[in-house]
Amino acid sequence: MTDTLPDDLLALIARVQPRADSALAQRLQHRLDRLTKPTGALGRLEALALQIGLLQGTDRPQLQQPQLMVFAADHGLARQGVSAYPQEVTWQMVANMRAGGAAVNVLARQHGLALTLVDAGVAHDFGAADGLVSAKLGWGTADASSGPAMAPDTAAEALRTGARLLAARPGNAVLFGEMGIANTASASLLLARLAGVPLAQATGRGTGLDDAGLAHKQAVLARCLARAPQASTPLAVLAEFGGFEIGMIAGAMLQAAAERRLIVVDGFIVGAALLLAARLAPAVLDACVFAHHGAEAGHAALLAALGAQPLLGLGLRLGEGSGAALAWPLVQSSLLLLDQMASFDSAGVSDRPA
Amino acid sequence: MTDTLPDDLLALIARVQPRADSALAQRLQHRLDRLTKPTGALGRLEALALQIGLLQGTDRPQLQQPQLMVFAADHGLARQGVSAYPQEVTWQMVANMRAGGAAVNVLARQHGLALTLVDAGVAHDFGAADGLVSAKLGWGTADASSGPAMAPDTAAEALRTGARLLAARPGNAVLFGEMGIANTASASLLLARLAGVPLAQATGRGTGLDDAGLAHKQAVLARCLARAPQASTPLAVLAEFGGFEIGMIAGAMLQAAAERRLIVVDGFIVGAALLLAARLAPAVLDACVFAHHGAEAGHAALLAALGAQPLLGLGLRLGEGSGAALAWPLVQSSLLLLDQMASFDSAGVSDRPA
Repeated sequence: MTDTLPDDLLALIARVQPRADSALAQRLQHRLDRLTKPTGALGRLEALALQIGLLQGTDRPQLQQPQLMVFAADHGLARQGVSAYPQEVTWQMVANMRAGGAAVNVLARQHGLALTLVDAGVAHDFGAADGLVSAKLGWGTADASSGPAMAPDTAAEALRTGARLLAARPGNAVLFGEMGIANTASASLLLARLAGVPLAQATGRGTGLDDAGLAHKQAVLARCLARAPQASTPLAVLAEFGGFEIGMIAGAMLQAAAERRLIVVDGFIVGAALLLAARLAPAVLDACVFAHHGAEAGHAALLAALGAQPLLGLGLRLGEGSGAALAWPLVQSSLLLLDQMASFDSAGVSDRPA
Repeated sequence: MTDTLPDDLLALIARVQPRADSALAQRLQHRLDRLTKPTGALGRLEALALQIGLLQGTDRPQLQQPQLMVFAADHGLARQGVSAYPQEVTWQMVANMRAGGAAVNVLARQHGLALTLVDAGVAHDFGAADGLVSAKLGWGTADASSGPAMAPDTAAEALRTGARLLAARPGNAVLFGEMGIANTASASLLLARLAGVPLAQATGRGTGLDDAGLAHKQAVLARCLARAPQASTPLAVLAEFGGFEIGMIAGAMLQAAAERRLIVVDGFIVGAALLLAARLAPAVLDACVFAHHGAEAGHAALLAALGAQPLLGLGLRLGEGSGAALAWPLVQSSLLLLDQMASFDSAGVSDRPA
């Protein structure tokens, strides 16, 4: 699967290792079971605390300087009419995020998340770009219905750039978000090709297509798949179907997992980036918490392909990292409870008879 | 249903009115639809913002001084062996909460919730009780398998006390929690009698009964129901089956709804208190947000009886108000997004073609 990858990416992938440690898992489970609550009464939050402890290699896991990284890019497929909104909305929303007016800004402020906004390849000149990391790989990808979205070298560069940008940020947890008109189309293509999910299941309404729009989108995506039947390695699939922001997120995820940072996965597009990363290095999943099950039609199949159990199910379909930010306080709670709750012994509470 | 209620409670119930206002609903919906996101993309959070706006009677709803009120009491049914933990755990956990070591303390600190702990009738002398509101209606209820849990006058006093304690707290939102060994038994009886749910569906494992324990609990509860076949009004059902904390929570909910405060409903026991309140004043539901779908077996039937769609589904079965506290940041997010997101017009973002 990785035969065509450059050496630096192969080295990165080799650093993504499983985090199993049965002795540590036992210590964590014992701590959880001695807290003043019925056994297992905190449900999913207990599994989460255990997972983060294993990831960090300690029975006293902590979260530090969480980063929310939003990658934005444009997609040549937008010219095929696969989105309910025009392409210029990508740069307009990036500008909105720089000004602090998007949903993700509100949620990042609410939860104290450091927000980094990356231009991975928006079809717009932002000029002197305060509050925007410029990492443009192009002015949008090429139209994947008539040729590859990008060259294989550019796909590798997307992974590399994402890894580099992640490595430059502090902290031990990262939440990913994205912005890009037509990027649900790209994500559906990745899901179809990398996980073998039929387009009828993998394709959704994105920002709000009607029935006719959805049928048209499916037809366009079918043309894309038919055009490149040979593409099967992760890098080839990324090059054929895009996009720049998806590739960068995948690369950043590999770097995060290599550094044992916690990864909070947002919705459909970030999930597709993870699918790409997981096909390169399956152990990246050990570092991942899934924020939510969104309303985009392909999300259920994607979550199933990843074996994921998301924390929230609020019917979101916004992207931007909004679902990841909404789930963040639950992640925090899991560790605060582990750290701060009294034990049966320290509180003098009777445990049940064995 | 309310023929036997004292005048003061009838007056309280009369103040709980529906909060429908179609002109205001339209204004709120218009504001939501002009925010820089695809229509409806925030899913459940949009419905939540709309609900809170209607409750507060404004298109600029805000949350102020949220209160988390935990009511604790003991249950005579505990003597019938219907819980996995011994009865003294009630007072021990109250002491743990006073010392700040329970799950609900950790979560209240995390989210800045003012915590009020009420002794509604714990079978323990707490002495000089810093950090504990004494409102003891008894040293636990009587054993409901051999006679009424409390006198009808005491049931009315429970409702009245809860209303009074709520009214004395500031703020416009309240989260409810409870502590009481064997109170899932009481809640199951309320669910069975007030909503006609069969005991096989209404009864769960509580803090962790095994199969034999569950079968025994069901048999005990069947005896309780058979003992008082005539009890059908909310007050009579409360008197027959308890408990003190459940009655106080129901009364506090009626007061909260009368004052147009937002109510965040925790799990199975708080939900049973709401069922009681809603049978007295159905419009109390207009004020309610349901925090989570817990793991207690009867919770699904209870939520269905209330027509509720909870925000979270984390497999919790702790009580204490822990689920309500975990859902709180989502409630806050819904209003922060409504208040702080830019509109298409203000941000210069293109709306989709009509």
